[in-house]
Amino acid sequence: MSFKYNRLDKDNAAVLLVDHQAGLLSLVRDIEPDKFKNNVLALADLAKYFSLPTILTTSFETGPNGPLVPELKEIFPDAPYIARPGQINAWDNEEFVSAVRATGKKQLIVAGVVTEVCVSFPVLSALEEGYEVFVITDASGTFNPMTRDAAWDRMSQAGAQLMTWFGTACELHRDWRNDIEGLGALFSNHIPDYRNLITSYTALTSED
Amino acid sequence: MSFKYNRLDKDNAAVLLVDHQAGLLSLVRDIEPDKFKNNVLALADLAKYFSLPTILTTSFETGPNGPLVPELKEIFPDAPYIARPGQINAWDNEEFVSAVRATGKKQLIVAGVVTEVCVSFPVLSALEEGYEVFVITDASGTFNPMTRDAAWDRMSQAGAQLMTWFGTACELHRDWRNDIEGLGALFSNHIPDYRNLITSYTALTSED
Amino acid sequence: MSFKYNRLDKDNAAVLLVDHQAGLLSLVRDIEPDKFKNNVLALADLAKYFSLPTILTTSFETGPNGPLVPELKEIFPDAPYIARPGQINAWDNEEFVSAVRATGKKQLIVAGVVTEVCVSFPVLSALEEGYEVFVITDASGTFNPMTRDAAWDRMSQAGAQLMTWFGTACELHRDWRNDIEGLGALFSNHIPDYRNLITSYTALTSED
Amino acid sequence: MSFKYNRLDKDNAAVLLVDHQAGLLSLVRDIEPDKFKNNVLALADLAKYFSLPTILTTSFETGPNGPLVPELKEIFPDAPYIARPGQINAWDNEEFVSAVRATGKKQLIVAGVVTEVCVSFPVLSALEEGYEVFVITDASGTFNPMTRDAAWDRMSQAGAQLMTWFGTACELHRDWRNDIEGLGALFSNHIPDYRNLITSYTALTSED
Amino acid sequence: MSFKYNRLDKDNAAVLLVDHQAGLLSLVRDIEPDKFKNNVLALADLAKYFSLPTILTTSFETGPNGPLVPELKEIFPDAPYIARPGQINAWDNEEFVSAVRATGKKQLIVAGVVTEVCVSFPVLSALEEGYEVFVITDASGTFNPMTRDAAWDRMSQAGAQLMTWFGTACELHRDWRNDIEGLGALFSNHIPDYRNLITSYTALTSED
Amino acid sequence: MSFKYNRLDKDNAAVLLVDHQAGLLSLVRDIEPDKFKNNVLALADLAKYFSLPTILTTSFETGPNGPLVPELKEIFPDAPYIARPGQINAWDNEEFVSAVRATGKKQLIVAGVVTEVCVSFPVLSALEEGYEVFVITDASGTFNPMTRDAAWDRMSQAGAQLMTWFGTACELHRDWRNDIEGLGALFSNHIPDYRNLITSYTALTSED
Amino acid sequence: MSFKYNRLDKDNAAVLLVDHQAGLLSLVRDIEPDKFKNNVLALADLAKYFSLPTILTTSFETGPNGPLVPELKEIFPDAPYIARPGQINAWDNEEFVSAVRATGKKQLIVAGVVTEVCVSFPVLSALEEGYEVFVITDASGTFNPMTRDAAWDRMSQAGAQLMTWFGTACELHRDWRNDIEGLGALFSNHIPDYRNLITSYTALTSED
Amino acid sequence: MSFKYNRLDKDNAAVLLVDHQAGLLSLVRDIEPDKFKNNVLALADLAKYFSLPTILTTSFETGPNGPLVPELKEIFPDAPYIARPGQINAWDNEEFVSAVRATGKKQLIVAGVVTEVCVSFPVLSALEEGYEVFVITDASGTFNPMTRDAAWDRMSQAGAQLMTWFGTACELHRDWRNDIEGLGALFSNHIPDYRNLITSYTALTSED
Repeated sequence: MSFKYNRLDKDNAAVLLVDHQAGLLSLVRDIEPDKFKNNVLALADLAKYFSLPTILTTSFETGPNGPLVPELKEIFPDAPYIARPGQINAWDNEEFVSAVRATGKKQLIVAGVVTEVCVSFPVLSALEEGYEVFVITDASGTFNPMTRDAAWDRMSQAGAQLMTWFGTACELHRDWRNDIEGLGALFSNHIPDYRNLITSYTALTSED
Repeated sequence: MSFKYNRLDKDNAAVLLVDHQAGLLSLVRDIEPDKFKNNVLALADLAKYFSLPTILTTSFETGPNGPLVPELKEIFPDAPYIARPGQINAWDNEEFVSAVRATGKKQLIVAGVVTEVCVSFPVLSALEEGYEVFVITDASGTFNPMTRDAAWDRMSQAGAQLMTWFGTACELHRDWRNDIEGLGALFSNHIPDYRNLITSYTALTSED
Repeated sequence: MSFKYNRLDKDNAAVLLVDHQAGLLSLVRDIEPDKFKNNVLALADLAKYFSLPTILTTSFETGPNGPLVPELKEIFPDAPYIARPGQINAWDNEEFVSAVRATGKKQLIVAGVVTEVCVSFPVLSALEEGYEVFVITDASGTFNPMTRDAAWDRMSQAGAQLMTWFGTACELHRDWRNDIEGLGALFSNHIPDYRNLITSYTALTSED
Repeated sequence: MSFKYNRLDKDNAAVLLVDHQAGLLSLVRDIEPDKFKNNVLALADLAKYFSLPTILTTSFETGPNGPLVPELKEIFPDAPYIARPGQINAWDNEEFVSAVRATGKKQLIVAGVVTEVCVSFPVLSALEEGYEVFVITDASGTFNPMTRDAAWDRMSQAGAQLMTWFGTACELHRDWRNDIEGLGALFSNHIPDYRNLITSYTALTSED
Repeated sequence: MSFKYNRLDKDNAAVLLVDHQAGLLSLVRDIEPDKFKNNVLALADLAKYFSLPTILTTSFETGPNGPLVPELKEIFPDAPYIARPGQINAWDNEEFVSAVRATGKKQLIVAGVVTEVCVSFPVLSALEEGYEVFVITDASGTFNPMTRDAAWDRMSQAGAQLMTWFGTACELHRDWRNDIEGLGALFSNHIPDYRNLITSYTALTSED
Repeated sequence: MSFKYNRLDKDNAAVLLVDHQAGLLSLVRDIEPDKFKNNVLALADLAKYFSLPTILTTSFETGPNGPLVPELKEIFPDAPYIARPGQINAWDNEEFVSAVRATGKKQLIVAGVVTEVCVSFPVLSALEEGYEVFVITDASGTFNPMTRDAAWDRMSQAGAQLMTWFGTACELHRDWRNDIEGLGALFSNHIPDYRNLITSYTALTSED
Repeated sequence: MSFKYNRLDKDNAAVLLVDHQAGLLSLVRDIEPDKFKNNVLALADLAKYFSLPTILTTSFETGPNGPLVPELKEIFPDAPYIARPGQINAWDNEEFVSAVRATGKKQLIVAGVVTEVCVSFPVLSALEEGYEVFVITDASGTFNPMTRDAAWDRMSQAGAQLMTWFGTACELHRDWRNDIEGLGALFSNHIPDYRNLITSYTALTSED
Repeated sequence: MSFKYNRLDKDNAAVLLVDHQAGLLSLVRDIEPDKFKNNVLALADLAKYFSLPTILTTSFETGPNGPLVPELKEIFPDAPYIARPGQINAWDNEEFVSAVRATGKKQLIVAGVVTEVCVSFPVLSALEEGYEVFVITDASGTFNPMTRDAAWDRMSQAGAQLMTWFGTACELHRDWRNDIEGLGALFSNHIPDYRNLITSYTALTSED
């Protein structure tokens, strides 16, 4: 019954961004659009900041689901990019699974649209294969809070850990002494309240 | 402690629709009526789309509980239809259980009204008998969110998986290449945002 | 200070449907999509039921705003249809105003997307010209409740009356003896709770 | 611009209860059923307590709308009871208007189901005829808060005063010295928190 | 890993009502007062209807916590009534535990105020002693939803089952053929929507 | 149609605190208790800070309504204190009105419990007599948001201005140069976010 | 009683941004931080886009209120910038009023923090002087929704018009033919749903 | 499968207060500021009341995160106070862990800001080391309810118990006979509704 705290480890974690496509985003109604956009980009920025191997995948991006949001392409120009020809569960796509395995990481950080499908399905598949899976709940969206609650329960009961982008960044960083400026900038760009703290602090301390 | 992902399998799943009766529906207040009606019909449509054996049952339909909503009768004209003479838990009705067993399926997809009774009771009974049970949370309704939360917790702790009609359809379908038009139509009929994506897409691509 | 109750009069009212376009609908987040779709179609159905002259207009429908939702085109195949070349306020489009004037009606029933622009602007213009204006609030959508509240206040203070599709239908109909079946069907198609009442009633009274 | 405070006067007020019918009540979703039932009965009890002339009316009560809720019939066995043959606006029914006029009162306290129709329409008609109209908002129900807000705005802008059953009782009573026990009992029966105050108070003061 | 569905059994269940006192009820803000009062009385009525042994207990009822709500005393005039001299956890009171044991039942149905203390503490104690414990969530109240959610999680993780009074009544009854009138009356008294169904049904079927 | 901005003037304003009694406070459910307590005390503190004449009144304070909250007595030991013998509208009590007139002020700042009675009634009476009336909405409480909204509308339509304690303090103060420390302390005591700003600011500026 | 629709006119409008300071922003809790930040910047961007004269003002920016958010300084490097020495109502500052008058505009677009003080006070002052005032509600923030509602009511009753940044942009622009790219970019930068429409549209139309 | 109820024991429990800093508090938006401040101080007061060893820690308190809120320093002038030089997880700081171990307690009561980082991380670390961990959910705050729900799930699944300050106080106290006045005062200071009960009770019982 003893609990083992397997922390997120920046040397052992990869990020999977599943189906953040321009059309599908119009389905997301459990998070306000301004906040959701911010959360997804914050997750992307932290993946880049910690140099985590990141894999992009889309579903039918030339159809009504629409293309991957351009910001993600720009942040990860060289990431594996799997435009799935039809598999709903990204884990059913061999190229995707190969890309995951090629990272050599055992911790998977997953976010996507919509939560109960594009996130849940590969999360459950990865758990079955023994990966430690961390769901970035606030960078994953779905139709409404009821839909989300059901999806969270299913993933949690299967052993996935429910995280947020901010908690993930902090758990990966471990110690501010590793780098203050970089992570501070990341937080300042994605947390207006934090930015305000910095602004006030800087104004006061630079006055002297 | 290892997790086994038993996916919904269209060849091994049956659908149980419990007590979606015109009178009882007035008790449902945890979901808006327009959305709830849509969710129930979406579940019915997917059951038909995937040719899943479906069983209908009602409680006292000649009394104040009222008749089964007519749309369900129309969609499943030949389905086993068990008008229970008094059993509150449908699983206490031998005819119902026989109908379930006759399907030969091991995965049960269950929805009904109200969640903590007409859904929970047969869900718990089926779990006890070893079935894999998937609760379609958004096609099941009850008095209020507090009532729902308690019911979900009881079922989840017992081993039921909390699903939605959309997640269920996607998990059953596996791959869009199995059929795009049919499932696309189903989604277009029951997800206005998705329909809008299709409308815009079609307008643009048919202009050429 | 005396109040004059100018009721909606089916012989003196026209309906203006402004910019219910597939793309713009993704902006609507103050009403759930299932309910909003239902409300818009209910308004269209009542316009047709009462044979009210109806005018359709769109903004940039070949661009990202997307085409008019197809259901509206189907319900009003012969209605004036003004695809505005650029005017944001439909009342700035002469063709639109001409169509309104051509109806010869003095009561305007208006709905559209988004509320504070496509609805408010022509509403304020029409009020200035002396029309009686009835805003169908639940068939008009916008970004969020705050945006809606501000738009409602502006229109109400200017003299517009805030209505809903159901209140509009009832005020136009005046007396059920004018026709029970037709209006009953309209309500049954768009109010699930009402449909359930009919279903239960019919079941009981047809049993005898 | 001076304001005249025409208080509710128990010698000059009548109560109109419009369409609180068993079927129509299933449409009310802007107030929880337990609370709404309590509010309607509280209004009825105060009408009786202050001996206000009260008029009951229903719409199609032998059809799906269902009969008047039995409690209201029991509280007002001798009240004018107008089962309207079809008029949606009760004020279009001559018998109803005659009953109102026969009371000789100039202040009308109105509640009903649904707010934007069965309440708003006679409220606006009565305002036009010069009555002072007080809407009992919490004993009137409708489909959802948006529908309610629109209806309140229309009535308020026309000059109706938005009240609650509790405020109405207090404004009619003026002074507790007119009678403590009767009004105290009415409040105790309909306000659980108030009942608890009485219970604790009584326990402590009767111990001595 | 197999699940055993130990249903509530009317021959093996007792009810514990903990600290529903007039003063403490003013602390309950996670449920509306009208609804909460109704839920508590519904639970009491079902305990009486099924003749379940019921135990009442209070904390400091001569102090600010106030006396037990009088309705409960009236419904259970002969029930064991333990006015605890100081123990916060009722299970720390020997007289209370003796009363529980004296029932000879193994299933405990528990409700009280406030949820995280007066309910949670005896629930956890009873679970430790091997009882099956069913928490009546909607007849238990606390300061706010956050407080409730934490309490529910603690009890659920310990093995308690989260129930509602309606689910409990249905699970105890098993089959409507055991008695329709009695249970129907109980539901009609405590579920306004259900009462309306009965009213409409009775009106239609007694017309013939 | 021109608007005249009659600002709150600390030399021309009096404060009326109506029925903030320990028992009645249990009825307040449109504001959280922690916040409401804070708002009421903030209003009292600002009345004292600006040396505004303040009048206290209660209704039946030896009965279940309970005594005035002790903090208010302590803050205003010498204020007129009218324990009304029965009048529900404080303005019906001659002693109260005399006390108001004795202040010689034309601007009345009013708060109380419950909003639609103890606040609305004297507000409407005072408006009729030509006073400028400012309702401190967040130091006034009632049963629920619906009740509040109706009360606000009635008062606003009659000409009362809806204020908050913070807005009132700022409008009275006019210019921070009149006194920074005193008002800053008042805000720091009643606005945790503001206190935090001061704490951080002080820490940084006192380090130098 | 006739209504005159004085539209926002880009040649006759100025923008007043009041106290959007890093410290004060921590007080804003009626809008989510991500959304609020976006709204304020959108308003700034539209002021710049339409070349509206814009005036910045702050209160005690070297104290705990903190400096103006840096983005606003960057967008309006040459705008009048009045760091008020103490006046709470910016209109009490002569330099500010002079700057307003110097614009020569009669329509004022106002936003700030907090709504009931920094916005309401100058809004009421400007109305008194005969300006047409448009409150940008969604770029103004305050402690909570209750505080906001009271402030909105006060301003609306005095004659201010409640607007949003999006409605303001559209009313100023009049016709898309004046410029599609610029305004489209502005919307794309501040409305994620709109950006997604553009992304999907561009992807489809550039494929040809 | 048997459950063991390890109650909080005042002789075996220590309190960890993590990062309640003036700057970080502006990030907390899942609880209203008035309530959150009250909850944190209530937890501190109970720690002091029960003489629980308490450990304070902060993160970068001379930077934008700001200093520990002064009230906590005042309540615990002699407590171990670890200003961490950079470790995000307090458990990574040896001085902190040493302080915890030095208490000799096996039950840890933890609260902090923000929940998913400053609370979750040391909670998970302590669980791994075999401590019994009790999270004081209402004295811990974070960005929004979604963030909180994810954090609660992660901690609960790992074995932490979700508590509130009130439940903690009651579980520690066990029996009111241990001391009525002290705990009563603590509750009266932090629960307005409870204070009101005391006020009314005292008024009535001291009158005799």
